[in-house]
Amino acid sequence: MVNIEQGLAALEAVLGKPTQEIPLHQPYFVGNEWEYVKSCLDSGWVSSVGEFVNRFEQRIVEYTGVPYAVAVVNGTAALHMSLILAEVKQHDEVLLPALTFIATANAVAYCGAIPHFVDSDPTNLGLDVEKLRDYLKTHTVIKDNLCINKTTSRVIKAIIPVHIFGHPVEMDALQALCNEYHLTIIEDASESLGSFYKDKHTGNFSDIAVLSFNGNKVITTGGGGAILLKNAALAKRAKHLTTTGKRPHRWEFYHDELAYNYRLPNINAALGCAQLEQLEQLVQKKRALAKKYVEHFQPISFARILQETKHTKSNYWLNALILNKANRTFIQDFIEKAHLQHYGLRGLWTPLDSLPMYLQCPKMDLTNTYDLYDRVIALPSSAQLLKQHGGVQI
Amino acid sequence: MVNIEQGLAALEAVLGKPTQEIPLHQPYFVGNEWEYVKSCLDSGWVSSVGEFVNRFEQRIVEYTGVPYAVAVVNGTAALHMSLILAEVKQHDEVLLPALTFIATANAVAYCGAIPHFVDSDPTNLGLDVEKLRDYLKTHTVIKDNLCINKTTSRVIKAIIPVHIFGHPVEMDALQALCNEYHLTIIEDASESLGSFYKDKHTGNFSDIAVLSFNGNKVITTGGGGAILLKNAALAKRAKHLTTTGKRPHRWEFYHDELAYNYRLPNINAALGCAQLEQLEQLVQKKRALAKKYVEHFQPISFARILQETKHTKSNYWLNALILNKANRTFIQDFIEKAHLQHYGLRGLWTPLDSLPMYLQCPKMDLTNTYDLYDRVIALPSSAQLLKQHGGVQI
Repeated sequence: MVNIEQGLAALEAVLGKPTQEIPLHQPYFVGNEWEYVKSCLDSGWVSSVGEFVNRFEQRIVEYTGVPYAVAVVNGTAALHMSLILAEVKQHDEVLLPALTFIATANAVAYCGAIPHFVDSDPTNLGLDVEKLRDYLKTHTVIKDNLCINKTTSRVIKAIIPVHIFGHPVEMDALQALCNEYHLTIIEDASESLGSFYKDKHTGNFSDIAVLSFNGNKVITTGGGGAILLKNAALAKRAKHLTTTGKRPHRWEFYHDELAYNYRLPNINAALGCAQLEQLEQLVQKKRALAKKYVEHFQPISFARILQETKHTKSNYWLNALILNKANRTFIQDFIEKAHLQHYGLRGLWTPLDSLPMYLQCPKMDLTNTYDLYDRVIALPSSAQLLKQHGGVQI
Repeated sequence: MVNIEQGLAALEAVLGKPTQEIPLHQPYFVGNEWEYVKSCLDSGWVSSVGEFVNRFEQRIVEYTGVPYAVAVVNGTAALHMSLILAEVKQHDEVLLPALTFIATANAVAYCGAIPHFVDSDPTNLGLDVEKLRDYLKTHTVIKDNLCINKTTSRVIKAIIPVHIFGHPVEMDALQALCNEYHLTIIEDASESLGSFYKDKHTGNFSDIAVLSFNGNKVITTGGGGAILLKNAALAKRAKHLTTTGKRPHRWEFYHDELAYNYRLPNINAALGCAQLEQLEQLVQKKRALAKKYVEHFQPISFARILQETKHTKSNYWLNALILNKANRTFIQDFIEKAHLQHYGLRGLWTPLDSLPMYLQCPKMDLTNTYDLYDRVIALPSSAQLLKQHGGVQI
């Protein structure tokens, strides 16, 4: 109980004493959101045809430095499409962390492929590259430039590192490992727009990467996502596959392959254009909020706020309070108590390997995953929460 | 050439002499679109949480009379989900018209099932129920209450009638046939919001039906769709499967089956709420425009405007000019010439059985399909096109 009281006091020091729930993450519209959306409505072109989709994709390219971006309906669609572009086929295995949002595993399943779960690194919550190295060495064999799972005899085709809560994975080490094992990397940067690894934006460390603009992300388009690509031909193919595979023609309908209706509507892109203009400011505010959390949780002996690691700059999408020792009961009690005081805390995702549809999937030892699941609490992290002048700004 | 000149003159009589392209179909915002979208932005809840999605679903229920509606990102997602709800599995066959938009066939393919193409009825452009009856009699056998394709030995599980251009399929006859052959009907009412069959709205003639609110439809949400359902448990399951299969909990993440991120963002639903308020007015305008087309194409001897059949009320989503005799060259020339004068005409969809990914699919004789493909031209049909006071209102 003493610990819970200390934790609640620290929350209050950062967030004030709210009279209504502070959500975990909330959109923040202080720029041209209204103007662009109105302009889109006034044009009548709210759907798949329109100016804002192109502009949004161009701005994403400019911000991230990845040469091509294709906007889609959401991050899940971006993941699914990325796996198709990486030529992940039925019965292939795809490595991904057990500790992440369900969409990443589901996208693998949509391809008829099999998620293969990897353990997490407590320093950044992302996949543990060193542990993966040992695992691949003993559990796989390279044959005809393919990485084969010795136990299942299936091809391990790709790997999806997720930059959890905005903290970049150790990409240098991962790239080296994936070169060695012939694994295609698909960076899941859904949570890390505004996060950098060695001064390059996340999404630059693989040929195919994914962004999300869901309502709980750093910036939002309502629902939305993007595929980031380095290769022009692949980008063209991504556009084709996300827009029903229709051959361009003024009045004929001819579709030349099985494709998807994953395009982002223009009205959502309009919102996105305005939000992208705010991104740097939002990241600054979020980093300042993180600093404040660090400061006020400093005196607490049983836990600390997770901070960005060497060579990385995090957007601190979500602030993670990490207990020194796993304690499920404490996590539950603390979150419940905090909710009573209107702090919208959350736990981590239930490890994916324990969900009914993924129980039979291959996995490595997941000690860190389960340890972190019982150690981490996500704290409210909206940009507008930075306490100033003694009050919560919401 | 004489015929083309006559056709262009009739277009001019209806639409005036445009100085810029008249698109085939364009959104029309004259109600509370702006107000609701602004209210949504002001609330901050533009994404998956928010008031407008519930309200939109409720309004759809009230308008169509189908007991439950689940809003999703687009019509393609609605089709995919409907097939999952109908328990269409890998290697099942699904009957659908060869003459329709690609999404219907693609949704079947997403399930690992096989499209099985049915011929069309020239009176309403939808699937030909009588021809289908003869075909099923000779080509299938009923075994353990399953309809088996005698040629492929696969189960024919379901059928998707599409109300093409807003004209309802002969649903009474189709329902009787499907009862006899144990086929689940999924009405594709993507084009027929505002269309009625025997005084009931389309979507009421099957347990699972689909709407679309794409930008080219009668009303739009930017991108959007809905699943219509008669059964409460199935509706609950549809909601679950379209919202990542997450068990409701304030702060825990637990997903109990393979599911999808198909929910409609709140900002798109806000637009939809305003558009639904306009629906009746829009349908009236579209019907008046159709009447005008009929009138002005009356003197033309080589073609006519397709009109609603007995027992049906069509929304005239798209007006179809139908030639007396198939003539591909004429269609191409007429469309090209019309485009030069800014009339955005289109042909029908390339019959789906001739597309590379569906070449190997089972199909019945498709004489009518190919005949109609060479006979029908779609005419600009936006509600705001009704010529008044001697000018095109766009």
